[in-house]
Amino acid sequence: MSSTTLSNRQIRLAKRPQGAATRDDWQFTTEPVADPAEGGVLVKTLSLSLDPAMRGWMNEGKSYIAPVEIGAVMRAGGVGRVVASRNPAFAVGDIVYGTLGVQEYALVPQEEIKRSGLAKIDLSLGTIGQWLNVLGMPGMTGYFGLMDIGEPKPGETVVVSGAAGAVGQTVGQLAKIKGCRAVGIAGGQAKCDFVVKELGFDACIDYKAGPAAVREGLKAHCPKGIDIYFDNVGGDILDAALAKITRGARIIICGAISQYNNTTPIQGPKNYLSLLMNRARMQGMVVFDYADRYPLAIAEMSAYLKDGRMKSREDVVEGLETFPEALTKLFTGENFGKLVLKVAD
Amino acid sequence: MSSTTLSNRQIRLAKRPQGAATRDDWQFTTEPVADPAEGGVLVKTLSLSLDPAMRGWMNEGKSYIAPVEIGAVMRAGGVGRVVASRNPAFAVGDIVYGTLGVQEYALVPQEEIKRSGLAKIDLSLGTIGQWLNVLGMPGMTGYFGLMDIGEPKPGETVVVSGAAGAVGQTVGQLAKIKGCRAVGIAGGQAKCDFVVKELGFDACIDYKAGPAAVREGLKAHCPKGIDIYFDNVGGDILDAALAKITRGARIIICGAISQYNNTTPIQGPKNYLSLLMNRARMQGMVVFDYADRYPLAIAEMSAYLKDGRMKSREDVVEGLETFPEALTKLFTGENFGKLVLKVAD
Repeated sequence: MSSTTLSNRQIRLAKRPQGAATRDDWQFTTEPVADPAEGGVLVKTLSLSLDPAMRGWMNEGKSYIAPVEIGAVMRAGGVGRVVASRNPAFAVGDIVYGTLGVQEYALVPQEEIKRSGLAKIDLSLGTIGQWLNVLGMPGMTGYFGLMDIGEPKPGETVVVSGAAGAVGQTVGQLAKIKGCRAVGIAGGQAKCDFVVKELGFDACIDYKAGPAAVREGLKAHCPKGIDIYFDNVGGDILDAALAKITRGARIIICGAISQYNNTTPIQGPKNYLSLLMNRARMQGMVVFDYADRYPLAIAEMSAYLKDGRMKSREDVVEGLETFPEALTKLFTGENFGKLVLKVAD
Repeated sequence: MSSTTLSNRQIRLAKRPQGAATRDDWQFTTEPVADPAEGGVLVKTLSLSLDPAMRGWMNEGKSYIAPVEIGAVMRAGGVGRVVASRNPAFAVGDIVYGTLGVQEYALVPQEEIKRSGLAKIDLSLGTIGQWLNVLGMPGMTGYFGLMDIGEPKPGETVVVSGAAGAVGQTVGQLAKIKGCRAVGIAGGQAKCDFVVKELGFDACIDYKAGPAAVREGLKAHCPKGIDIYFDNVGGDILDAALAKITRGARIIICGAISQYNNTTPIQGPKNYLSLLMNRARMQGMVVFDYADRYPLAIAEMSAYLKDGRMKSREDVVEGLETFPEALTKLFTGENFGKLVLKVAD
């Protein structure tokens, strides 16, 4: 096909947000689609992954990855279909995962293929939604965070915050598969019901149920304390978990969504000396470090999806233009499962 | 000798201090010394170890060790001489280390010998002062914290706070012996000079030199960042260190002396998300967990003392009755080296 007749709608970062991002922080552009040069690939975006980490990419300054530049297309991972290729590794019609950006078409030059992580994916292992969820970055984050840093042993108690979210659902279900007790923390009764009844966690604590809900819930549902706490939220919930850890406990610092929109300094965990009393460790992780081992983890997780031990729930929002509002759902806790922006069929 | 003619001066915990401990928090008692029963030992206290951890033992509530009860003799480790023994493992004249308490004589019944850690020490390996310092709890804390949790590799940069204190001097000197760059943080120019000129650290930052002194000092003296941070102080200095850690860094949480006298909540490390960005870990340690391996560590450290690569500086205060004021020195930073209370010759 000729791509020169196509136009590409894009969403660019207009300015760095103060606090929560609003529609004013984005710029909407339309450009003609260019043909790939030798070695390059043109990908039509099908679905994009919306993740809490995106808020961090919008900030200036040092992080585990460079910030998105002002005026650049917003960074996003996603699944697309190859519509033009001058690279022998990709054929028209291939379904690929990569950092496509918030746009309808991603032109990936040869020198960017590796950096964007562009790779064919096998839809026999899972749906596009599952490839953005349990088989994608959130699933890999949950897998390597729990397995490599948490080192779960059968009979241990694993607590995960953001339990109904993409990472959280993987962590809790995988903890159960590995023989642990899984306790979730999520916002609202509907999410908690989903986490227990659909995903099979042993219990789930509704942090919105009252100021002491998390503390009392952890006391009730973790009678032997917390051996592994997988933290996606930070703030008061991290402190409540620190107060209940066991000797030798492991805390995985995966994110701190309660703090990402702060305009004031981050709230540090005032109970961190529990690490001392309990000879416990708190460790940060970034999923990209485990890229070499994704294929093995994907094969394992795909098997759990097929035998029904792992469920994958996506919250699908449609239309590129809804991106600004869709992203906001992550921070208000409105999303229910992995948030996916469907851009095309 | 008959012990019945002896009287035993003791310092007991009168009440739980609010903030810094004062003389009013202590009760001074004198009791006749009793003879040991079958299996017991009577020890005359020679020197006691004064440690920041003592402040924690005075608080109510859960910690890594039970609090000292109101009315009980204050807990303290120390070196003494056996003056009466009905236990075949100890002979009159033996020099022992154990939890003797802040008193002139410790009567240790058979069933308490293990719990008090009573053990003969070999003065050919080091002086009494050294046995309370580099060869004692502080030295063991520094040794196992640095070696087991820090896992230093040659060429790495090790930063330690409380560098002129008992644990800090061990950590920095051991880091140098292991081929690392050692940077201390201490209060005042005199301590910093001692740390660099006497102990051989590569640099030492005077945290009292100004509000930005630690941040700027770490920038200047850790050009490749901090691979290992051994934290004895918590608070702002922990945050400054977190801002400079390298990828894969290890932070040993050994204490938080800046926070022990707090009457407000502990100040949590607001830069803890640096653990995430840097895939770093923060881990607590309690020296007693390594008791099985003390003898090997003592042999190693004694060799360093003898070949001059390790120096041991003690700040000796004399007289049991000076205990309340002597303890205070630890929190005002007045002590210069390991604080030892000499009770008898």
